Amino acid sequence: MMDPMTAIRRARAGQREIVIVGGGFGGLTAAKTLAADRTVHVTVVDRRNHHLFQPLLYQVATAGLNPADIAVPIRSQFSGHPNVAVHLGEVTRVDLRERQVTVRDERRDVALAYDYLILACGARHSYFGRGDWEEYAPGLKTLEQAVEIRRRILSAFEAAENEFDPEVQRALLTFVVVGGGPTGVELAGAIADISRTVLVRDFRRIDPASARVVLVEAGPRILAAFPEGLAQHATADLRQLGVEVHAGTPVDRVDADGVSFGGERLAARSVFWAAGVQAEGVARTLGVDLDRAGRVKVAPDLSIPGHPEAFVIGDLAHAEQDGEVLPGLAPVAIQAGRAAARNILASIHGRPRTPFRYFDKGMMATIGKHKAITALGRARLTGYLAWIAWLFVHILYLIGFRNRVAVLAEWSWSYLFSRRGARLITGREWRT
Amino acid sequence: MMDPMTAIRRARAGQREIVIVGGGFGGLTAAKTLAADRTVHVTVVDRRNHHLFQPLLYQVATAGLNPADIAVPIRSQFSGHPNVAVHLGEVTRVDLRERQVTVRDERRDVALAYDYLILACGARHSYFGRGDWEEYAPGLKTLEQAVEIRRRILSAFEAAENEFDPEVQRALLTFVVVGGGPTGVELAGAIADISRTVLVRDFRRIDPASARVVLVEAGPRILAAFPEGLAQHATADLRQLGVEVHAGTPVDRVDADGVSFGGERLAARSVFWAAGVQAEGVARTLGVDLDRAGRVKVAPDLSIPGHPEAFVIGDLAHAEQDGEVLPGLAPVAIQAGRAAARNILASIHGRPRTPFRYFDKGMMATIGKHKAITALGRARLTGYLAWIAWLFVHILYLIGFRNRVAVLAEWSWSYLFSRRGARLITGREWRT
Repeated sequence: MMDPMTAIRRARAGQREIVIVGGGFGGLTAAKTLAADRTVHVTVVDRRNHHLFQPLLYQVATAGLNPADIAVPIRSQFSGHPNVAVHLGEVTRVDLRERQVTVRDERRDVALAYDYLILACGARHSYFGRGDWEEYAPGLKTLEQAVEIRRRILSAFEAAENEFDPEVQRALLTFVVVGGGPTGVELAGAIADISRTVLVRDFRRIDPASARVVLVEAGPRILAAFPEGLAQHATADLRQLGVEVHAGTPVDRVDADGVSFGGERLAARSVFWAAGVQAEGVARTLGVDLDRAGRVKVAPDLSIPGHPEAFVIGDLAHAEQDGEVLPGLAPVAIQAGRAAARNILASIHGRPRTPFRYFDKGMMATIGKHKAITALGRARLTGYLAWIAWLFVHILYLIGFRNRVAVLAEWSWSYLFSRRGARLITGREWRT
Repeated sequence: MMDPMTAIRRARAGQREIVIVGGGFGGLTAAKTLAADRTVHVTVVDRRNHHLFQPLLYQVATAGLNPADIAVPIRSQFSGHPNVAVHLGEVTRVDLRERQVTVRDERRDVALAYDYLILACGARHSYFGRGDWEEYAPGLKTLEQAVEIRRRILSAFEAAENEFDPEVQRALLTFVVVGGGPTGVELAGAIADISRTVLVRDFRRIDPASARVVLVEAGPRILAAFPEGLAQHATADLRQLGVEVHAGTPVDRVDADGVSFGGERLAARSVFWAAGVQAEGVARTLGVDLDRAGRVKVAPDLSIPGHPEAFVIGDLAHAEQDGEVLPGLAPVAIQAGRAAARNILASIHGRPRTPFRYFDKGMMATIGKHKAITALGRARLTGYLAWIAWLFVHILYLIGFRNRVAVLAEWSWSYLFSRRGARLITGREWRT
């Protein structure tokens, strides 16, 4: 057993050691930016062995894509870069004073020393103090959760087919999505879509198209981050797909039998959570200023005030621009990852740092099978054209050439034949 | 709550109800053969919602294919056949006298009445009375097990990369496969292959190519069902790949730290089980003659002696031909499924039944990336040519057009670039 206080230093003599915590959009972009410079050694630490293309996670949850279509092994991204190492484990503590992070794996704790640090470990779902709701309403942040949601959706149709009590059958065919952001909208649209197209010919006793899909949002309207006109358009598109949209109705209760919201009780066996997010808990071990969502308040160069060698990016960062906090979106994380890496290289090579400035390339969300909304600067797209734009951008940004090909093939298939290639119910238990 | 003794009968008036237990090769073929005849109604009962192409399961276990590439929803196979219903649940009891089966799902037990029955629920791994070994040595019969084996293989390399004790590192990089049948041979070959090609550039502290892969067989030689010359060829091919082959050495013990066999103790953190099989337990509820492996002894027309309305096929059946028991292979199950279905239709339409005769189309097994052995009648193929034959047959037999395309794409990719598309470690737990 190693003494956890004896920190490992992976860089060779003369190299600076840069530890990046998190292999998401921000961390991976930072690592790729740094990899080309052989005066640095980079260690990417992540709990999981794969980078996940989170914007398409709802497609795994609704049997449209395979888990492997939207995930690439982090290691495989650095096969050609011997100065990048990947360390599988969970960072439980950051010691800014000693410049080391504690990493836990299945076997032990070790400490990794750094010269520069980039914290990019993101956020998880927030149940607003009701962690006990998670059991009944899984979130959608990881592949495991997406496969669990897929299992619940497909199993609900199967159980309804076997059910004789019409009331229970109704509850089994009622799907509630809590949270009207892009994830909630995309998930609700996709559930409505598969029940009306893919599954419709495959059952004998139930009509899958009769499934109720209910989207519940606490705020005054769905897609709060989008311009109001586009959100209205999306609401109309969702209703046309058969999704019931309830805005201004916070959820009061979630249990095994359904949800309560706005004084109403809805019997539903499937509830999914796409509401709040909170920063990963490791931020609390820093001993620095956090905002209400647990995010680290960073300086304009993305470093922690008083710690120019430690950067925070992505969903874990509270970065302000023009008086507003930058949103937790993939493009923000990608641009911040590049900026943080460049600022580290600037310091190493004796150049001045540059304040981070996010360039907004727009926002998009899909609704059902081939509609979307897109806000690109002042341009607004809706319907089919917006969907084509969405398709193009998502294929383009998918990290790893193979995945682009696989996703395009899956989508062409499902588009042409209204089928879903990944309609698998796999259990949690492998034992016989 | 329904009275479980009030059996449900799904057929309409005038239709015969045929219940098929199991959606594997045998059950699915039988259902497809029967579906075209509208004087019958077919109910396929399975614990899982998907038909699994078991011969390629080892490719999922070694990150070559996605789970969805080798599985199709059973329902989707009968979209165009309103006289075929699929019932998700586990058959816990068969009552031959009352002509009904008891099906358990998550909610309750129900009984399904039948006029004709086809039992095709297959076999599971046998640990020869040592069920406690399963924890340390998962078998390879289901998608869940394949994903678990994939998780263990990839996690072992990750843990070895983080390990400082050379002895533990050695045990983490030692993989033992118990059982030298086709599954064991293919699994061992594929583990050796990925450690020497796919993973080799992605680690910094360990050399994945130094991984030990050990194949242990209790019988005097591996691939006992194949001609001896081919088995010798396979042994040589495996050794060339770096697999250590030990025949004539039964395993004495499996635990968390390794295996004991032939008086030797081998420290290994990953042990996989591809040894014996035993028939599914439901056979014991029949009250009829079983063989030592728990299989039902059937008459020449595949029915249970004394019960001309009840058939048993596939791995659950003990069917003899020319004095030998037919082996538990996919082609036997497929041909038997067709024969049982035709015998049922013969009885319904007043024609005589035909005794089942298995037509042996040959056997094949792959060794590593592009070698195989094939026995086709008196012809013997080895090496690359045998591998091409193997590829052709497996693509041809993959049920569902989409899967053929997906598998061919995955294989072309991995063949051209020595990469594996499905290198995902996904956990057992979805909660945060």
